[in-house]
Amino acid sequence: MINILAINAGSSSLKFQLLQMPQEHVVAKGLIERIGLKEPIFSMTTNGKKVELIEKITNHEDAVQLLLHHLVEQQAVTSLQDINGIGHRLVHGGEEFSDSVLIDDEAISAFEKLSDLAPLHNPANITGIIEFKKALPHVPAVAVFDTAFHQTMPESSFLYSIPYDYYKKYGIRKYGFHGTSHKYVTGRAAELLNRPVESIRLISCHLGNGASIAAIDGGRSIDTSMGFTPLAGVTMGTRSGNLDPALIPFLMEKTEKTAEEVLDILNKKSGMLGVSGFSSDLRDIEVEASKNNPRAQLALDVFANRIHKYIGSYAARMNGVDAIIFTAGIGENSDIIRAKVLAGLQFMGVYMDPDLNKIRGKEAFISFPHSPVKVIVIPTNEEVMIARDTVRLSGLQGF
Amino acid sequence: MINILAINAGSSSLKFQLLQMPQEHVVAKGLIERIGLKEPIFSMTTNGKKVELIEKITNHEDAVQLLLHHLVEQQAVTSLQDINGIGHRLVHGGEEFSDSVLIDDEAISAFEKLSDLAPLHNPANITGIIEFKKALPHVPAVAVFDTAFHQTMPESSFLYSIPYDYYKKYGIRKYGFHGTSHKYVTGRAAELLNRPVESIRLISCHLGNGASIAAIDGGRSIDTSMGFTPLAGVTMGTRSGNLDPALIPFLMEKTEKTAEEVLDILNKKSGMLGVSGFSSDLRDIEVEASKNNPRAQLALDVFANRIHKYIGSYAARMNGVDAIIFTAGIGENSDIIRAKVLAGLQFMGVYMDPDLNKIRGKEAFISFPHSPVKVIVIPTNEEVMIARDTVRLSGLQGF
Repeated sequence: MINILAINAGSSSLKFQLLQMPQEHVVAKGLIERIGLKEPIFSMTTNGKKVELIEKITNHEDAVQLLLHHLVEQQAVTSLQDINGIGHRLVHGGEEFSDSVLIDDEAISAFEKLSDLAPLHNPANITGIIEFKKALPHVPAVAVFDTAFHQTMPESSFLYSIPYDYYKKYGIRKYGFHGTSHKYVTGRAAELLNRPVESIRLISCHLGNGASIAAIDGGRSIDTSMGFTPLAGVTMGTRSGNLDPALIPFLMEKTEKTAEEVLDILNKKSGMLGVSGFSSDLRDIEVEASKNNPRAQLALDVFANRIHKYIGSYAARMNGVDAIIFTAGIGENSDIIRAKVLAGLQFMGVYMDPDLNKIRGKEAFISFPHSPVKVIVIPTNEEVMIARDTVRLSGLQGF
Repeated sequence: MINILAINAGSSSLKFQLLQMPQEHVVAKGLIERIGLKEPIFSMTTNGKKVELIEKITNHEDAVQLLLHHLVEQQAVTSLQDINGIGHRLVHGGEEFSDSVLIDDEAISAFEKLSDLAPLHNPANITGIIEFKKALPHVPAVAVFDTAFHQTMPESSFLYSIPYDYYKKYGIRKYGFHGTSHKYVTGRAAELLNRPVESIRLISCHLGNGASIAAIDGGRSIDTSMGFTPLAGVTMGTRSGNLDPALIPFLMEKTEKTAEEVLDILNKKSGMLGVSGFSSDLRDIEVEASKNNPRAQLALDVFANRIHKYIGSYAARMNGVDAIIFTAGIGENSDIIRAKVLAGLQFMGVYMDPDLNKIRGKEAFISFPHSPVKVIVIPTNEEVMIARDTVRLSGLQGF
């Protein structure tokens, strides 16, 4: 039996799961929030029992020590010796990493070079790596990248139509994100369809507070909606998705803001929050829409419209599609969005069953049995992918 | 017989056609270039005879006087009295104009208010209107807008996912352009398909140095690829089309340029020029691609990839499509681009005949007769649309 810690370190948070492999059984999971801020919170669920504590956590070092202490205290593991591997989520792997990688000093310095591409995320992810390395120096650690799965995109998909120099000099290209999630649901879809992944064309809709769509041909990502950053693509909770680029200079002039300030608005005040005017949370918007709030209805329509169009364009990329997948918070739970997204796709063979579509948060086919294109709801599981890659790359396979 | 002058006034140019209506016969056409610059050139073809002169043309007033003089001199008209109406192209009609309009003082002040939305184009267009009004004060004049045809887009298509305020306050939304062209080919397609326009779903690909795609359902534009400005959408000759908006602040920082300077690069140094590194002209790129220049091949692939994806997404918008139209310089002439764009769309019923596809610059079906979706090459004709609207709105119909 192997115990793997799957870690997602943010700038003031640390999300974790302890998984028993190869059973993929979750022993403990939790979240440390407000690291370095007032009233940090540690919460963990172990074998159905939840603890929530306000602790003094001044930095990531404290957070790691606290987590390790509680894993033993709550008997998730007998001792720290029982932790066999640690998998770290890293947002950006650039063009260097098309797969997860065993972490050594060389890898860490490669990650640091990539921080330029993901200044909000990679440095925090790296801090997590370093603190665990200090605390458990002999435990193998693996980095799993959000971008890696999309490294199979052809150049004509990932290149922007800007001076080619900018690609060579600054690494400006489409990278795509949510790769770990898209990869997980790809594998599950092949199992559920009972077909080899090499033979199927999938469109994966990861719809959470961040959202991205991917075209996956034979198990390989060939296009995705997010771009150089996670701002691009479809409408999201607070992010604008694609825009006419000329809007940024126009907004800077009109609002007398800097480029960074406008970018901040596009990241944090836009998307469904911007359109609805009151919330970035789809659940709130659905409630208001049901009360005939026109801006709430508009937000739903805009969101669904953008996803709908990506599905059409990705079907075109693969000359058709075998299955469409819905995953992540909204994709798994919102029958309203799924119905809006899928309306009017009969021309390409998509027939959704409104009764089956009522499902929430469970694996299920929601297309009619006769539908040439299958539609599947698949709860995502990034942690299990991190744990699997950690086992594979740490040489723990035959443990 | 009615003579209509169709005018497209740029900041240093004036393009014109004199059309006999309702026959839609072109009596004279030409171009005045380099107005106010060194060595201005006046060129005009009348009944097959071409004159080209270098003249002193210090401003648009001179240009108009010169044009009127030569129209009589070259016997395009017997006297200026024979000019019955003038139609002016106006780039931006905002939300105020969903159809062409007879020009009076009130209209001109409305146009001036819209210059904010098209600072590079509308002021020059308006100068043309004013100078012709001075020269021929009693001749009715009509404005025909690039944006008007797209005013039928629903809010969920035209709204950006940014704070709703920006739409109300600054008019930030998708307007779309090339409307006069998309409308012309829509009418022709209905005639060629011998079906009422209300019953057909069309995707119109206007591919010139500027390029835009439109979804036209029952004769009404419901979505289009250009946006708030003509920079958005597909890759163009020198324009980037859609980008991750976060690229602009990133490029500003990396290249130490202002937002306006970056925007200038996205408008003038990007697109196929940026990708190929040597030309914005598709003909040059096709020649180099045939010699196995990889960057030229890449530019063709990027350009075709973007159009291909729009076709998929617009088919999804209309639950299928009855005909795909190719128009403007590239659309009418490049069998290479048409073949690349249409490859792999059999899933939605598109079967292009490679032999028929060899056609250049002529109206022709290029799909196999059995293809459920028809593909049609239709040379565009914006001038005839301008002349028709001028006749219709000037009350010249029963002349």
